[in-house]
Amino acid sequence: MPRYALQIEYHGAPFAGWQRQAQGLPSVQEAVETALGKLEPGPHTIAAAGRTDAGVHATAQVAHADLTKDWDPFRLASALNAHLRPDPVAVIACAKVPDDFHARFSATGRRYTFRLVARRAPVTHDRGLVWQVLNRLDICAVRAGAAELIGSHDFTTFRSTLCQAKSPVKTLDRIEIAELPYPGGIEYRFDLAARSFLHNQVRSIVGTLERVGAGAWTPADVKAALEARDRAACGPVAPPQGLYLVGVSYPVDPFAR
Amino acid sequence: MPRYALQIEYHGAPFAGWQRQAQGLPSVQEAVETALGKLEPGPHTIAAAGRTDAGVHATAQVAHADLTKDWDPFRLASALNAHLRPDPVAVIACAKVPDDFHARFSATGRRYTFRLVARRAPVTHDRGLVWQVLNRLDICAVRAGAAELIGSHDFTTFRSTLCQAKSPVKTLDRIEIAELPYPGGIEYRFDLAARSFLHNQVRSIVGTLERVGAGAWTPADVKAALEARDRAACGPVAPPQGLYLVGVSYPVDPFAR
Repeated sequence: MPRYALQIEYHGAPFAGWQRQAQGLPSVQEAVETALGKLEPGPHTIAAAGRTDAGVHATAQVAHADLTKDWDPFRLASALNAHLRPDPVAVIACAKVPDDFHARFSATGRRYTFRLVARRAPVTHDRGLVWQVLNRLDICAVRAGAAELIGSHDFTTFRSTLCQAKSPVKTLDRIEIAELPYPGGIEYRFDLAARSFLHNQVRSIVGTLERVGAGAWTPADVKAALEARDRAACGPVAPPQGLYLVGVSYPVDPFAR
Repeated sequence: MPRYALQIEYHGAPFAGWQRQAQGLPSVQEAVETALGKLEPGPHTIAAAGRTDAGVHATAQVAHADLTKDWDPFRLASALNAHLRPDPVAVIACAKVPDDFHARFSATGRRYTFRLVARRAPVTHDRGLVWQVLNRLDICAVRAGAAELIGSHDFTTFRSTLCQAKSPVKTLDRIEIAELPYPGGIEYRFDLAARSFLHNQVRSIVGTLERVGAGAWTPADVKAALEARDRAACGPVAPPQGLYLVGVSYPVDPFAR
């Protein structure tokens, strides 16, 4: 059975998250598996690099699927996109991969972007696509707070109590915060990279760093929260609609031509 | 009566355009006038710098309104935004202006941006916010075609037959086309600037230049179309959802602090 890697973009709003839900709630996984079922009889079960939460977006989720027929990758992507309509889910790249490629277990890095917009007037075009706050942040303080989190740490403070990872120790390779022009305000774009993340880790970090930028926390408070290894020490968790899974790394990029 | 200038952002999709419609269709003008009516008894009639068409967006439309009360501009914007909810219309700046300021007649320049995305897979996050085509454009050809339109010309070919401007002669100061990364494809961002534009001029130009980028037209065909001074010589008109009014210039910026 040939195996295919799919790079998938989606708008998180209509979905209860990536993962298929026992309760029959709509999920991105189910949408893609249903589209696969229109091409070849199922059931299909696909695995993805990042199990994004309800409302979280992706521009580059990666999943793999095993099919019976030897599909041309370009035609497979087109056929899936035809069956995915009108759901806001699109296969933006597709490649045949070796049998030992696993979208989740072969992945060596994940990159997330969080879009935070600060302005008084409600956003219009970006409704559901950013987290909006009213006041500008102290970007130097945000960066100083972020620096406390770089490297290998026990991130118990910054993970959901529902997190199923065996260990709370993760290595955060990068947090960069860019300031971008935004009509009537400013956008802060957080870029985070790690081999893997804990459940709610990015949103817990961004929500806490927003408090630092607002002056309610100091960078030292972030360090103390991390060292507390206590979920109760975390700042507020940022809402899902600002978060995007934007990249997954593999030892060999399956989509490189 | 103090006069206020309002900088207004809106999502064009739910509206029949900026201008109040005789048929009772929803318009941005009506939405803003209705919000003004919640603050002071009307009727209110506001004038805007650009009468955008149905489905066209704005990040920086400018309108002026005359009110009885001496409003603090910051509070006026907040009050209007509260009354504009849940419409995707937001007052992102507000300033008190001299009585002789007129949003339309005082304006000395308009800037529009057109977002065109080329990729095979349907867009998800930007649905309704860009014009999508399937194939990449020859950017050099697009720029060569655009160069034919810079300067003062009779733009009869590039204006709607419904255009009410007295003269078809306009001076196009700038068309710049930037290529931006886009997941699974590429975005072409057209930036156009002129003192004023004819009805459908930007969409007629972008639709024609897309044909040049696709190889169906040559840059010389653009020149010939312009010189024909004949609406029938125009290429297809680009759809409204890629177009944004992004700036209006005045001799003195009313929103400068």
